[in-house]
Amino acid sequence: MAKDKKQVKAITSMEDDFAQWYTDICLKAELVEYSSVKGFLIVRPYGYAIWENMVSILDGMFKKTGHENVAMPMLMPESLLKKEGELVNGFAPEVAWVTMGGSDELEERLAVRPTSETLFCDHWAHVLQSYKQLPMLYNQWCSVVRWEKTTRPFLRSREFWWQEGHTIHETAEEAIAETEQQLNCYADFCRDALAMPVIKGRKTEKEKFAGAEATYTIEAMMEDGKALQSGTSHYFGDKFSRAYDVTFAGRDNTLQYPHQTSWGASSRLICAVILTHSDNNGLVLPPAIAPIQVVVMPVAAHKPGVTEAAEGLLKRIQDMGIRVKGDFTDNSPGWKYAEYEMKGVPLRVEIGPRDMEKNQCLIARRDTGEKYFVPLEELETKVQSLLQEVHDNLYNAAAERLATRVYACQTVDEIREAAQEKHGFAKSMWCGDQECELKLKELAGVSSRCMPLEQEKLGDVCPVCGKPAMKSIVWGIAY
Amino acid sequence: MAKDKKQVKAITSMEDDFAQWYTDICLKAELVEYSSVKGFLIVRPYGYAIWENMVSILDGMFKKTGHENVAMPMLMPESLLKKEGELVNGFAPEVAWVTMGGSDELEERLAVRPTSETLFCDHWAHVLQSYKQLPMLYNQWCSVVRWEKTTRPFLRSREFWWQEGHTIHETAEEAIAETEQQLNCYADFCRDALAMPVIKGRKTEKEKFAGAEATYTIEAMMEDGKALQSGTSHYFGDKFSRAYDVTFAGRDNTLQYPHQTSWGASSRLICAVILTHSDNNGLVLPPAIAPIQVVVMPVAAHKPGVTEAAEGLLKRIQDMGIRVKGDFTDNSPGWKYAEYEMKGVPLRVEIGPRDMEKNQCLIARRDTGEKYFVPLEELETKVQSLLQEVHDNLYNAAAERLATRVYACQTVDEIREAAQEKHGFAKSMWCGDQECELKLKELAGVSSRCMPLEQEKLGDVCPVCGKPAMKSIVWGIAY
Repeated sequence: MAKDKKQVKAITSMEDDFAQWYTDICLKAELVEYSSVKGFLIVRPYGYAIWENMVSILDGMFKKTGHENVAMPMLMPESLLKKEGELVNGFAPEVAWVTMGGSDELEERLAVRPTSETLFCDHWAHVLQSYKQLPMLYNQWCSVVRWEKTTRPFLRSREFWWQEGHTIHETAEEAIAETEQQLNCYADFCRDALAMPVIKGRKTEKEKFAGAEATYTIEAMMEDGKALQSGTSHYFGDKFSRAYDVTFAGRDNTLQYPHQTSWGASSRLICAVILTHSDNNGLVLPPAIAPIQVVVMPVAAHKPGVTEAAEGLLKRIQDMGIRVKGDFTDNSPGWKYAEYEMKGVPLRVEIGPRDMEKNQCLIARRDTGEKYFVPLEELETKVQSLLQEVHDNLYNAAAERLATRVYACQTVDEIREAAQEKHGFAKSMWCGDQECELKLKELAGVSSRCMPLEQEKLGDVCPVCGKPAMKSIVWGIAY
Repeated sequence: MAKDKKQVKAITSMEDDFAQWYTDICLKAELVEYSSVKGFLIVRPYGYAIWENMVSILDGMFKKTGHENVAMPMLMPESLLKKEGELVNGFAPEVAWVTMGGSDELEERLAVRPTSETLFCDHWAHVLQSYKQLPMLYNQWCSVVRWEKTTRPFLRSREFWWQEGHTIHETAEEAIAETEQQLNCYADFCRDALAMPVIKGRKTEKEKFAGAEATYTIEAMMEDGKALQSGTSHYFGDKFSRAYDVTFAGRDNTLQYPHQTSWGASSRLICAVILTHSDNNGLVLPPAIAPIQVVVMPVAAHKPGVTEAAEGLLKRIQDMGIRVKGDFTDNSPGWKYAEYEMKGVPLRVEIGPRDMEKNQCLIARRDTGEKYFVPLEELETKVQSLLQEVHDNLYNAAAERLATRVYACQTVDEIREAAQEKHGFAKSMWCGDQECELKLKELAGVSSRCMPLEQEKLGDVCPVCGKPAMKSIVWGIAY
């Protein structure tokens, strides 16, 4: 019987093979395991705990702004999916189809949901009657299936976990405001929970969501300079409402179509966190989403009183409401260091006989490797301030990268160089023509990431065609 | 366009048509809506909020006993499902099959998970090596699909939401202890969160889970005297481990098979709550899982200071950490009363001009309809104690039913009478023979609910065949 025996915890270095380094972290930090179902992932306890922390924070943010959770069916009839032409064209190639229930062939095949706009519209068509019921601010936590050809843990797999917000509003203005609010919510979450800065912007026609009138996105820069789309927020106007016959009696008693949004963020954010902060010793996690924020361990535990002293520290940190784990196993200190480094635990607290004599403990940071001897009476203050420092340091390093590796470009060559040689993003003006976008893909190997909400004047003409520029835009190599 | 116009909030009375009364509550309390997907449910915000409260409490209980959440694939290959013969035979008739991914026919069809034992075993076969890793205590929150022929909201639908715990242990004793622990966990949850007493017991061979060595169950009695299986906990021995080749190096360094359990509770518990506590005015919810525990409303809100006074009460109750809603809409008091009665909100707090003069407010209970004039300075104490009283009253009423409507029976006729005429459960002795079980189904219209863990001596012989009795057993008409 072949088994994946537990390996020594060494991983490929990111300089040698960035892709392999990423996969190694996913497996060695025990975030995921491959399943027997091609392209489908098993999210293991440590990986799932990261996701649970993300869900808990995001869900709280959504509820604070009045959103309610619901559950829609996992399957939807093909005819329902087909009512909105652009959507079905966008998703049909990657839909998994249920064609049998028990031993019976189904009369109409059912799609495993790739996204649920159609189901929400169908529901609203049944329950919406009056403007008094608006807005309806719904969200769903679930997994969806898209039949991807090539897959990588968290980044792209045939099933992924996400939330999909779906809302309808009385006016276009309100729906647009919702789209923007949720984009800001994602950006704030990335900053405050993931220590990850993002560029907020609007997608081009080519890159927008199938069926949307406008798609807004947050784009983050990974350690290798590639772009990771980390959340999107769509404005649909009344297009789907019309396709699905969703109407309400307005204030003037006429029949009207509501204006709609949807917005989603997924387990892909785990990929974003890994590729933003980790290093050659493994995962580095921002404290807000770390399943274990602090690990406590005794040094020379066989010496009298050491275990009790470590247990005392554990208890004090627990009482702070911090996610703390004590490791009292007989594994060697070296093994433990490597283990919690691999798992990205932000702080390690140690106490041994000599520390006890000096009435101190040692705290080591995962992000910088710095060590501090801390007087025992200052434990709580120091743990609290170090967790904040770890967060700030991670954020600042990522922000520094984003600030220095987005290159202002005037020519196609400069754009290519920025992405291919300098391993960053390119920003330039753009005429708005899709042909230039396609040409840049061909000539510079980049795709448009977004037209930033904070527009800049970087020149007068489009670097591709030389025609007058409409917008500033960011280009990059995308995950 | 046909729409379900909002109906006057009257529902069928339970005396007239118990089944219709149940469905009316599900729809009128806005817990669910039918979807365009036959047999699939939409769980609306108010229904989902009940489920979220259940999930939050149960998840906390699971974590306290060391269980970790994971996510397994939603789909599984047919060959994997087939490795354990009894399981596949049990579930094959109700599996939904994915046969196409995008436009490609799949080489092997994939089952939408009806339950995930096979996936967990397959995963463990890859990651388990040593007894040091045991026990593995996993749980998954997800939805599953079973192709039921007839469906009813929450009770039985083609998709339902649940948790499935899956654990492996070094010894049979530990696995059996886990099975019992989780059964007790469910029973405690039903008592403390759902105000619902249950009978704990073991299923007969006929009624046990496909592939299990033993299935334990909690059975509750609904208001109509029928039985609702509300949670099950299974012991598998090493049967699945052998089928899926899950092994570990034991303490003595020999290769061994771990012993396995699984246990599940589902959104069916929402059905159980409705059928245990509700009345002809609608839903009645136990406070622990009520999305709104208290509603506050002003009376004669146009009079000076009334709205402010109600807002003051709202704020004070919010500060208690209670789920409270203020209703300051201009709907009539009568409409509001009916609305929050229908939704089963445990307490209603009102304040009007006359109350303000007397420095009091009015609190009305959903369960008994009792009203209390409460001095404003006693608001917090009274709200707290009334919520506890509501819980206790609901529990006591349900416990009283269970205590008085389980009839000790000596003959087949008495068993039939207990179930069919007295609308309760029958308890009797049983020889242990499946033939007698089948005969009772035919002659008395009952199925075996469980062999209670607390065994009683109710006689010496089996009422069906007259042979010596092995066990006391409970019979009933099951949902």
